Amino acid sequence: MSDRFEIRFAGSGGQGVILASVVVGEAVSLYADGLFAVQTQSYGPEARGGSSKAEVVISSEPIDYPMPVQPNLQVILTSQACEKYATDTKPGGRLIIDDFYVKDIPEVDANIYHLPIVKTARDVIGRELVTNMVSLGMVARVLELEKVAEPEAIRKAILSRVPKGTEEMNGKAFDEGYKVFKNSQSLHF
Amino acid sequence: MSDRFEIRFAGSGGQGVILASVVVGEAVSLYADGLFAVQTQSYGPEARGGSSKAEVVISSEPIDYPMPVQPNLQVILTSQACEKYATDTKPGGRLIIDDFYVKDIPEVDANIYHLPIVKTARDVIGRELVTNMVSLGMVARVLELEKVAEPEAIRKAILSRVPKGTEEMNGKAFDEGYKVFKNSQSLHF
Repeated sequence: MSDRFEIRFAGSGGQGVILASVVVGEAVSLYADGLFAVQTQSYGPEARGGSSKAEVVISSEPIDYPMPVQPNLQVILTSQACEKYATDTKPGGRLIIDDFYVKDIPEVDANIYHLPIVKTARDVIGRELVTNMVSLGMVARVLELEKVAEPEAIRKAILSRVPKGTEEMNGKAFDEGYKVFKNSQSLHF
Repeated sequence: MSDRFEIRFAGSGGQGVILASVVVGEAVSLYADGLFAVQTQSYGPEARGGSSKAEVVISSEPIDYPMPVQPNLQVILTSQACEKYATDTKPGGRLIIDDFYVKDIPEVDANIYHLPIVKTARDVIGRELVTNMVSLGMVARVLELEKVAEPEAIRKAILSRVPKGTEEMNGKAFDEGYKVFKNSQSLHF
């Protein structure tokens, strides 16, 4: 990896974006080698509108400035969040957008992946609740491609975080997300 | 409140310090007026030792630098965390330390509260799991004294975050923590 890798999850309250970013932070610090991570949530008056975002900065060195400057990877789950954040993506970076809640694909200088995150959670797993786990599977594939961390690190962090008895469902959601991303193609602008 | 109020929760994995700080961030942004908050977790190699910390910076203005510089309030749940972080407390600030897991009271220029956080969770509520909710009750009393937010803001944020069916237990743990702090006295150094 380069010295710094920035990820942002954005969606609405209840889509579990905070847990998703906590899992990434724990995964890279506990189950990958020698990485530092800072995970943040910023809340302002807009939180009342129900939007939610959470971010992780990963680095091979201690992190001075913990806020993303230009996320290398964004996972965006609502059209409101897409309008607000899509253009922040680092040029040439990756932007994963949900194909159920986001219909208009933004024009951004990035690799754009318009993928069934919510649909996979709902139709394959049967619970929209695991949307964040599907997105973590996609993130795991990106982190693998970028040589930041192995998918197994994310998977372990998920299993140690989710409530007892839900490990199988969450693990399956993760695996499905990983597969969907692996078989996908990006749109370039 | 002054322009900026910084809180750190520190303990070990499983004590719920991340959820505690997420609750504070959501409470002040959703249920208090015109406040901004940034909530962070920093992970480094020490995370493997099982220690856990989470921080919130609250401000009446948008927050440029989201990491605590000198926390106005720290809640510390283990002796390991106490050794590491107690001296960071802002001079004249407040340091709440658990009286079950932390026996040595650090010499710090702060108002120190050596209080039964874990014991209240375990003996009054019957579940050590709600340690973080007891500590949130204490934090709520401090935020009230500091005129940052009303206790009800924290209480509402708890109830909207915890799993269905556990609201009563968590609410009671919060109330107990609030009472314990309200009836406590600080030690001065």
